Amino acid sequence: MKKIAVLTSGGDAPGMNAAIRAVVRKAHYHKIDVVGVYYGYEGLYNGNFELLDLGSVGGIIQRGGTMLYSARFPEFKETEMQNKAIENLRKEGIDGLVVIGGDGSYRGAMALTEKGFPCVGIPGTIDNDIPGTEYTIGFDTALNTAVEAIDKIRDTATSHENTFIVEVMGRNAGDIALWTGLAAGAETVLIPEEEFEIEDIVARLERSAARGKRHSIIIVAEGVMPGHKLGKILEERTGVQIRVSVLGHMQRGGAPSARDRVLAGRLGARAVELLLEGQAGRAVGIQNHAVVDYDLKEAYENEHKADVSLYTLSKELSI
Amino acid sequence: MKKIAVLTSGGDAPGMNAAIRAVVRKAHYHKIDVVGVYYGYEGLYNGNFELLDLGSVGGIIQRGGTMLYSARFPEFKETEMQNKAIENLRKEGIDGLVVIGGDGSYRGAMALTEKGFPCVGIPGTIDNDIPGTEYTIGFDTALNTAVEAIDKIRDTATSHENTFIVEVMGRNAGDIALWTGLAAGAETVLIPEEEFEIEDIVARLERSAARGKRHSIIIVAEGVMPGHKLGKILEERTGVQIRVSVLGHMQRGGAPSARDRVLAGRLGARAVELLLEGQAGRAVGIQNHAVVDYDLKEAYENEHKADVSLYTLSKELSI
Amino acid sequence: MKKIAVLTSGGDAPGMNAAIRAVVRKAHYHKIDVVGVYYGYEGLYNGNFELLDLGSVGGIIQRGGTMLYSARFPEFKETEMQNKAIENLRKEGIDGLVVIGGDGSYRGAMALTEKGFPCVGIPGTIDNDIPGTEYTIGFDTALNTAVEAIDKIRDTATSHENTFIVEVMGRNAGDIALWTGLAAGAETVLIPEEEFEIEDIVARLERSAARGKRHSIIIVAEGVMPGHKLGKILEERTGVQIRVSVLGHMQRGGAPSARDRVLAGRLGARAVELLLEGQAGRAVGIQNHAVVDYDLKEAYENEHKADVSLYTLSKELSI
Amino acid sequence: MKKIAVLTSGGDAPGMNAAIRAVVRKAHYHKIDVVGVYYGYEGLYNGNFELLDLGSVGGIIQRGGTMLYSARFPEFKETEMQNKAIENLRKEGIDGLVVIGGDGSYRGAMALTEKGFPCVGIPGTIDNDIPGTEYTIGFDTALNTAVEAIDKIRDTATSHENTFIVEVMGRNAGDIALWTGLAAGAETVLIPEEEFEIEDIVARLERSAARGKRHSIIIVAEGVMPGHKLGKILEERTGVQIRVSVLGHMQRGGAPSARDRVLAGRLGARAVELLLEGQAGRAVGIQNHAVVDYDLKEAYENEHKADVSLYTLSKELSI
Repeated sequence: MKKIAVLTSGGDAPGMNAAIRAVVRKAHYHKIDVVGVYYGYEGLYNGNFELLDLGSVGGIIQRGGTMLYSARFPEFKETEMQNKAIENLRKEGIDGLVVIGGDGSYRGAMALTEKGFPCVGIPGTIDNDIPGTEYTIGFDTALNTAVEAIDKIRDTATSHENTFIVEVMGRNAGDIALWTGLAAGAETVLIPEEEFEIEDIVARLERSAARGKRHSIIIVAEGVMPGHKLGKILEERTGVQIRVSVLGHMQRGGAPSARDRVLAGRLGARAVELLLEGQAGRAVGIQNHAVVDYDLKEAYENEHKADVSLYTLSKELSI
Repeated sequence: MKKIAVLTSGGDAPGMNAAIRAVVRKAHYHKIDVVGVYYGYEGLYNGNFELLDLGSVGGIIQRGGTMLYSARFPEFKETEMQNKAIENLRKEGIDGLVVIGGDGSYRGAMALTEKGFPCVGIPGTIDNDIPGTEYTIGFDTALNTAVEAIDKIRDTATSHENTFIVEVMGRNAGDIALWTGLAAGAETVLIPEEEFEIEDIVARLERSAARGKRHSIIIVAEGVMPGHKLGKILEERTGVQIRVSVLGHMQRGGAPSARDRVLAGRLGARAVELLLEGQAGRAVGIQNHAVVDYDLKEAYENEHKADVSLYTLSKELSI
Repeated sequence: MKKIAVLTSGGDAPGMNAAIRAVVRKAHYHKIDVVGVYYGYEGLYNGNFELLDLGSVGGIIQRGGTMLYSARFPEFKETEMQNKAIENLRKEGIDGLVVIGGDGSYRGAMALTEKGFPCVGIPGTIDNDIPGTEYTIGFDTALNTAVEAIDKIRDTATSHENTFIVEVMGRNAGDIALWTGLAAGAETVLIPEEEFEIEDIVARLERSAARGKRHSIIIVAEGVMPGHKLGKILEERTGVQIRVSVLGHMQRGGAPSARDRVLAGRLGARAVELLLEGQAGRAVGIQNHAVVDYDLKEAYENEHKADVSLYTLSKELSI
Repeated sequence: MKKIAVLTSGGDAPGMNAAIRAVVRKAHYHKIDVVGVYYGYEGLYNGNFELLDLGSVGGIIQRGGTMLYSARFPEFKETEMQNKAIENLRKEGIDGLVVIGGDGSYRGAMALTEKGFPCVGIPGTIDNDIPGTEYTIGFDTALNTAVEAIDKIRDTATSHENTFIVEVMGRNAGDIALWTGLAAGAETVLIPEEEFEIEDIVARLERSAARGKRHSIIIVAEGVMPGHKLGKILEERTGVQIRVSVLGHMQRGGAPSARDRVLAGRLGARAVELLLEGQAGRAVGIQNHAVVDYDLKEAYENEHKADVSLYTLSKELSI
């Protein structure tokens, strides 16, 4: 193997640049060339390639977003698209591909691998929803962004004794909501993985008010329902004005946290090693504090599960 | 004068605590006691008072929100409410009152002054909309919060080449939008003080796209229209998906910036001096880098004007 | 068990307050009272106690430092000091003690346990040097503080093409240096656990310079040697001016990161459970993503080991 | 005028990139080309030039440091160096030069202007020590960096009841120390502009201790004396351990604050206008909230004065 390629795909996540940097530097350590593919699978199809030297990845470890850009390209599930991509890669003398993205991106990587082009997947998404790895690149940064925002919201909630609903991201996963809720000391956390009764929230609000505490923060994962919808329901039930804040896309950006950068470094380096070892169709991840690798299919065929013990803890600590 | 009181009123703003601290410490420097009034004018009416010593204001200079809490209390425009408040103050041996808040809060202070109880106003609001002072306490922090959020949003906008609308606060004033837009390098800024044509925004988006730049950030002040409404209009006109982010209440919180803390220190100290000098019905402010004071009425009878030169600059720099 | 106590001891760490909060709230969940001990073991000896209700721990989850204060109190290794402490605890009807601190603090907890007073230890130190737990409370925050500082230093290093040495904390452990180095993309990392040759650093600096890259960041753990000393050695050997920055005590403070708050919540809650289960002389920790507990002695009799694989990775990525 | 050049010189400051961006965009607005000069005056002498289009300054508004690099080049005071620089500029068809830097950099700009090549100066330095402008670009960011660091140090100072000395930058000016001290609520601030007696500091420390407050923060400007030296003196006098933290070069870096970015935008745009108006040998600045310009010589022949009223305020508020 003399030359590999790297691309980012799906929603961007802080730390993707740090992962690209690790792929490039680790490859150079082994005297392998690296080609960057712009715009994810669309760029693979269009042959939008550029050779990345050490200078190309200078000063990017601390930047959010992805220097290779990302794009949704659902057409890539078609066979002819995939064939064209492999043709483009071969023409450039490229023998392996590192895909940084979410579980959707892994499907494309598996398709190419099955057609004989070796790919390795690196989990890059803020949602932390990829089976087989305890953490995904970007999750820790998104958490800190959400928690810092809620710390600010709490200032004003406390000063005015208001109840706030804060909607956080996570698609169908409750990880961001759950960890954010624990870290921000939220009074209530709603995640898609756990059923809840509006009655219970109302009762909790009333119990707090009775105890003299009139401000409260409710975190709701976007996978449960929109924050504004929940706000309307609760206002109708309690007769109290509820304020709603939707944190939105700022959760996807920002300088990656220390933890996300180290994770990106470890996973990026391991991905290159796997290709050099002749492995294909593998995803890298972190488990028990160690870097692991497993079949790409496990990542999208299995179901991600949020850590339910945190949910119980959250309830106990927010009495 | 042996004892004065201090309260915070209206929307809270970062730096209010630093202003309370300055009032207390400056008063102690002159051997004057300070009584804190909880919940603004409501607390004045209810006699919700507590003596504040130096220890009470330890460790608050860096905290958002207000340790005295705030509340809306429209009933305070009634004469009997005001009389009761003065009665409560006199009963405690209090001879002067410092009110930290926005222009609405100043009306209450003027009413009390006209009834013979000397009040001084300190401008505390993120909106920067109080005539007579170049800056209000909290504005600088809100700016930095908004700019940091947009820096994060830009990461993802750039990675995906999306157009984003970001709605910022400011009530009827465009200051937050204007300064934030300049500082964040926004492509378009919409403020209530300046008319605009949807056509122009559409044309600008198309011009950028033609130049190959497909991501764009539009800042809209809440006083213009809701971000989501603007998003719908632009989507209909351009046929392109527009993402909307409403920064919301996090703009009110957070540790105050260095500038807001210094401003709070200067204005808080001056407010105490004014009361000691026997002045009443005055507002403090900053002009030409110096602390000034002026009739409270000027603050709410005049109209705040955003700096139009910044608007022109914003247009020239975002070609 | 009806009443337990909690104290913080040794160097303070961000997240100690979040741990105190978790202890108090989890205990209240089980209808147990909690007494806070001020100034660590010194306060235990002096009977400096205060009952902590839910309100006492309101608004502290996001604050650095420790609301219970900390103090060095080496005299506590004397038997009569320990007896007096137990006497004080018994007199208040306290049946168990949670100690938040480093390995030194664990010795005191073990001594009390051996005298019949059940104690549990929570690892609170930025140094990450406690055997038996993968992470200590405060480590993640200290990392992020160090990395953000180095991001800023890199701005100026790059602009002027200077070489910088940055000294970070960690006592005898290299964890902060190692993780910070990886996350900040440092060119060289020196930790106490790994020998190094000055020649190698000089050669690396010269190699970089030959490649046209004239700025460089060297992270040195305080356990290796003072940054200024290393600076002098390198200046003599290379003839090039080297700038030195000692990050210092800011690494101990600041709002805890999301990760540290969640860790503090989990460990604080588990510590209370252990006491309720009648266990004594245990330390809580995190391993393989799960909360564990083990004999307090293991924490100070075993030796902490930094993750050497990260050191190798750091070298490979900084070619 | 069809083409102008821009360079950064002297110590770098956050916001220099925002100023470069404003120069480039404003020039393009007027259909003028802009050439970037790398490495300050050294690059002017060496002809190290590059044409900057709108894309060159994309995504730099939020970055610390300077994309044009900076360098000390004392040789530039020699006439032949200056002649060569003008020759290089003329050869490229460049008719004007914008210099972003401190007062030292202004001398070079004046020398070129006197030889017939029109230059304009923009004040870029964290030290805020340029006469004729109330603020320099970078000062506000450095303040916030210092204040955030001291907020963290205060956490640990409070927890352990230690006295800390924090040394901040500013060369011969006390502005950073003075504003930082006020914003961080420091107990003592020492600046080069005001004499002080060690006795007074000792007395203040003892007074605080007697009042039961045993932690204290002393800010010392680097222009007064090194922090470690002051620490030794105070330890000898009080017999109490004093901790010292030297904030160092991190004060020069980091994403510029909102205020610094707006200031950079305003001054950068005005500098271009001045050249277009045919003016030369002018410095731009901010006074009374408005952009002004004045003779470059005033900037280095006059003496900068810190605002003494802030020093008095600082003393009154830290009783």
